[in-house]
Amino acid sequence: MAEQSAERGTRRRGYGEGLTGELLAEFLGTLVLVLIGCGSVAVAVVGLSGSGRQAGEFGPANWLIISWGWGLAVVFGVYVAGGISGAHINPAVTLAFAVRRHFSWGKVLPYWAAQVLGAFVAAALVYAAYHWAIDAFNAKEGIGREESLPTYSIFATFPAEYFGGSLWGPLVDQIIGTAILLLLICAIIDQRNTGPMANLAPFITGLVVVAIGLTFGTNAGYAINPARDFGPRLFTFFEGWGAIAFPGKFDWFSSYWWIPIVGPLIGGIIGVKVYDFFIAKVISDRGPEEQPEGRVPEPGF
Amino acid sequence: MAEQSAERGTRRRGYGEGLTGELLAEFLGTLVLVLIGCGSVAVAVVGLSGSGRQAGEFGPANWLIISWGWGLAVVFGVYVAGGISGAHINPAVTLAFAVRRHFSWGKVLPYWAAQVLGAFVAAALVYAAYHWAIDAFNAKEGIGREESLPTYSIFATFPAEYFGGSLWGPLVDQIIGTAILLLLICAIIDQRNTGPMANLAPFITGLVVVAIGLTFGTNAGYAINPARDFGPRLFTFFEGWGAIAFPGKFDWFSSYWWIPIVGPLIGGIIGVKVYDFFIAKVISDRGPEEQPEGRVPEPGF
Amino acid sequence: MAEQSAERGTRRRGYGEGLTGELLAEFLGTLVLVLIGCGSVAVAVVGLSGSGRQAGEFGPANWLIISWGWGLAVVFGVYVAGGISGAHINPAVTLAFAVRRHFSWGKVLPYWAAQVLGAFVAAALVYAAYHWAIDAFNAKEGIGREESLPTYSIFATFPAEYFGGSLWGPLVDQIIGTAILLLLICAIIDQRNTGPMANLAPFITGLVVVAIGLTFGTNAGYAINPARDFGPRLFTFFEGWGAIAFPGKFDWFSSYWWIPIVGPLIGGIIGVKVYDFFIAKVISDRGPEEQPEGRVPEPGF
Amino acid sequence: MAEQSAERGTRRRGYGEGLTGELLAEFLGTLVLVLIGCGSVAVAVVGLSGSGRQAGEFGPANWLIISWGWGLAVVFGVYVAGGISGAHINPAVTLAFAVRRHFSWGKVLPYWAAQVLGAFVAAALVYAAYHWAIDAFNAKEGIGREESLPTYSIFATFPAEYFGGSLWGPLVDQIIGTAILLLLICAIIDQRNTGPMANLAPFITGLVVVAIGLTFGTNAGYAINPARDFGPRLFTFFEGWGAIAFPGKFDWFSSYWWIPIVGPLIGGIIGVKVYDFFIAKVISDRGPEEQPEGRVPEPGF
Repeated sequence: MAEQSAERGTRRRGYGEGLTGELLAEFLGTLVLVLIGCGSVAVAVVGLSGSGRQAGEFGPANWLIISWGWGLAVVFGVYVAGGISGAHINPAVTLAFAVRRHFSWGKVLPYWAAQVLGAFVAAALVYAAYHWAIDAFNAKEGIGREESLPTYSIFATFPAEYFGGSLWGPLVDQIIGTAILLLLICAIIDQRNTGPMANLAPFITGLVVVAIGLTFGTNAGYAINPARDFGPRLFTFFEGWGAIAFPGKFDWFSSYWWIPIVGPLIGGIIGVKVYDFFIAKVISDRGPEEQPEGRVPEPGF
Repeated sequence: MAEQSAERGTRRRGYGEGLTGELLAEFLGTLVLVLIGCGSVAVAVVGLSGSGRQAGEFGPANWLIISWGWGLAVVFGVYVAGGISGAHINPAVTLAFAVRRHFSWGKVLPYWAAQVLGAFVAAALVYAAYHWAIDAFNAKEGIGREESLPTYSIFATFPAEYFGGSLWGPLVDQIIGTAILLLLICAIIDQRNTGPMANLAPFITGLVVVAIGLTFGTNAGYAINPARDFGPRLFTFFEGWGAIAFPGKFDWFSSYWWIPIVGPLIGGIIGVKVYDFFIAKVISDRGPEEQPEGRVPEPGF
Repeated sequence: MAEQSAERGTRRRGYGEGLTGELLAEFLGTLVLVLIGCGSVAVAVVGLSGSGRQAGEFGPANWLIISWGWGLAVVFGVYVAGGISGAHINPAVTLAFAVRRHFSWGKVLPYWAAQVLGAFVAAALVYAAYHWAIDAFNAKEGIGREESLPTYSIFATFPAEYFGGSLWGPLVDQIIGTAILLLLICAIIDQRNTGPMANLAPFITGLVVVAIGLTFGTNAGYAINPARDFGPRLFTFFEGWGAIAFPGKFDWFSSYWWIPIVGPLIGGIIGVKVYDFFIAKVISDRGPEEQPEGRVPEPGF
Repeated sequence: MAEQSAERGTRRRGYGEGLTGELLAEFLGTLVLVLIGCGSVAVAVVGLSGSGRQAGEFGPANWLIISWGWGLAVVFGVYVAGGISGAHINPAVTLAFAVRRHFSWGKVLPYWAAQVLGAFVAAALVYAAYHWAIDAFNAKEGIGREESLPTYSIFATFPAEYFGGSLWGPLVDQIIGTAILLLLICAIIDQRNTGPMANLAPFITGLVVVAIGLTFGTNAGYAINPARDFGPRLFTFFEGWGAIAFPGKFDWFSSYWWIPIVGPLIGGIIGVKVYDFFIAKVISDRGPEEQPEGRVPEPGF
């Protein structure tokens, strides 16, 4: 460490300094997130096809694959980018942290761009690995891509039929889901509270997303992340799913595309506000001497 | 830290000081618990409907969703409130800690109220996200809410049919389940034993509830927490499930409501007594020099 | 700590000193193990009955319930007893540690007794919670307890049909399973290797048993623990399952009872010998200066 | 520690010094990996037979067994060998670390040999435990081993039918899968990033393989490890599966054997290059004073 410090004055830095390095980390972290996450839906939809699943609906064991898949996707997206950018890998996180004044407003748009780009490239990689399986699935169903909602669902989200055309329902769903996400992220990274140590916060953060998948995932596919949804949605639009992704002709599913962008941005802000009102402000008000009754401090800390 | 201490003499404190802050934390922690927990049942019952599930019974993969859902619900309820109130988020925990003399008797009733209120509000949020799915489910089954046990089960618990009207069976079940809960919580927070460090006790505590769900969950829905059951039960009573929640006309299911209140309160006390007799007292009697044979202390601790 | 030490010379100790305290811990630890473990089989067999399961066989989702159930059972059995007795909660562990000279031979038999007793009492508690469900299950199948292998399987183990009467197959299975168990326990508690710190060894140890369940569980129910099998087997013998548990009239299933006692005791010794030859001796031979290439020591340790 | 150091000058070392010890560790680590991993497929294919599975395809609950089985296999393979050899237990890891200059080129071939040998012996042990079940399964299907793809799949991998004879598809699949593996391993062991501490890196590394199984596992069985596939493949060739393992007469499945060797070796190198370009170089360029905004260092570290 001391040697490194001495060196620093004279050492010529490379491309990784400053914002560029952070954007590379956000790009790769979001890429990992979407690569693993969408991969899990690919396994559930086309990888295990023939296992009793019917097009357009998921059984509970498939749902466990998807929920753990997206959860672990977050775990590893955060481990990859955590030390450099703090691993937002989600525009809703970036915005909420900026609103909370823990992040510079000037970096919000660049972060968003890196995140969406990472998600788009990840969708292309998932497609590279799964286009054989996707084509075989559609051939078996006798449908083209532009009418194949199941294979589209590998990449981006859509609302459950029971909303019956209401966009208000999915919007509430995305707001609640992302509010939970940010509320719990705030708890996990708060060392004055009981945030996990030993660099295990990325693991616990992934469990948040397992939890959201198991609890608020089926209403509308729990995007809870504008980049995770919009990047792959763009990819499917160009790669043959067309109007399912965006409205060529207007219909409900395709006009849904802005919900997983706007909903998470609103929900994330609500999440940090709730945490700050109920917990962060309370911890500040109490001061360090007020501890839960009977709490024993850890030895060595 | 030093600066903060200096500041403390003059700083004006806010609403978070003292009991108010603890109650806010208990409210939000229990809200998170019930929001995630009941959400997982919603996914299993109405979110994945069409996936082969029959009304009134759960398949094993659905049960995994529910068990992990409620377990992660506890993980995050505790991470949210842990640093302020110790995160009881369960009246049975509060009572048992008071009996154990690790918690002031004077705060028991306020804690209970905050917990029930948090659970009630969480039920309303679950309803906000799932009422479309609930109504679609009931429409498909051709039944009204007041006869829809499956959609009721999203919010509160009921005993298995095989008890055949006996209330003694479910009571034993709730006592055993909550005794396990408190026994294991005592073990996990005991740093003289092998309680997890690095702020991972909330994670391990959640695994206790995964375990109870997988092992004592099907008898009567493992409330093991009076607030978790009573708060959402109240909500369903007002929101149209009526006599399923509470006896309008008397029948077995609806007269069951007091079991998940009384059973956990008894079971929790038994749990701490068992831990204290078999383990805590033994550790005190032995003193720190008696360690398990061959135990190697961790470096640095 | 200093105060406690000063006190020690004069303080009158209680029942928890010395071997008594260790036996209480082993009793309760094994009780927790079997209570949670057998409970998970009860959920899979009778708790979720009606969910498509056929008598005498387990589907893959049920098997996940059982594997995680027994794994978490070990996690919490070890957290309960770990600080006092080292949490063997398994006669095969006790014997293997004695053979390895990390445990006094004189304490082996008392530990075994405490473990079997704990397992027996746990079986009674599982029965207390599940006898309604068990009786309903058998009534539905139209069979008595003495011919009900599924309800028997809640408590103790039996070999798969495909062994066709061979006892050699199940014996090999028990030896391999328990050798894996002890080999991995040795790795986990070895701080010169990469044994987990922060008191998370109990969690990782439970994952060993999840792993064994998912990989060597279906041959013969993965007792891998003489107390876990023999205690509950005794209970079922007295409680009506009779000849399924022990041979009234001789047949293959019932004469199997000694395999989950002898197999684990042999396998456990093999496991520690393998670890000591391949790993522990190698670490001693290398000395602390030989580290894996590129290994970075943790900061602070 | 000081005493040990003093001793070192005179103590006579044993077989465990130097490369021999490392090879013993790699042998045992890979053995544990394949023993547990292949065991999980055995449970899914023949252990739970009768549970609705059809030959040649896996349902989603079976897939959860296999994904967690192989993931925990990695967890424990790494815990066993981690302190001695760094627990590569995978020729693709060894090669990638050599390319990265974190491992001596001269040790690559010996490591590879130890890994393949460990995997081969593990396959023999799995066969020892499961040959009764395998033979019963084939007898029930009325087929011989040389035409039994399901029982072959316990040991080694094969591509999904939808690749329709293309070898390019499975090769891309293996490259992507192993690139993810090495990219994430690099992140996990990087203490300048957010690599887990408290010796929990082996646990998190296993979760990487759970993730890959849930997301890129169904295309071609996610070997992502030449030893894991080639060792057991050799075993099946000698033990009666013949041309399924290697081409007696040429066909697609059997000519596939070199893909899970070449693909992972390429993918692993890509993985470390990606990590180094996007993350490791960026961390070096930034220097230790540039931290993620708002990051709070852990107390005590």
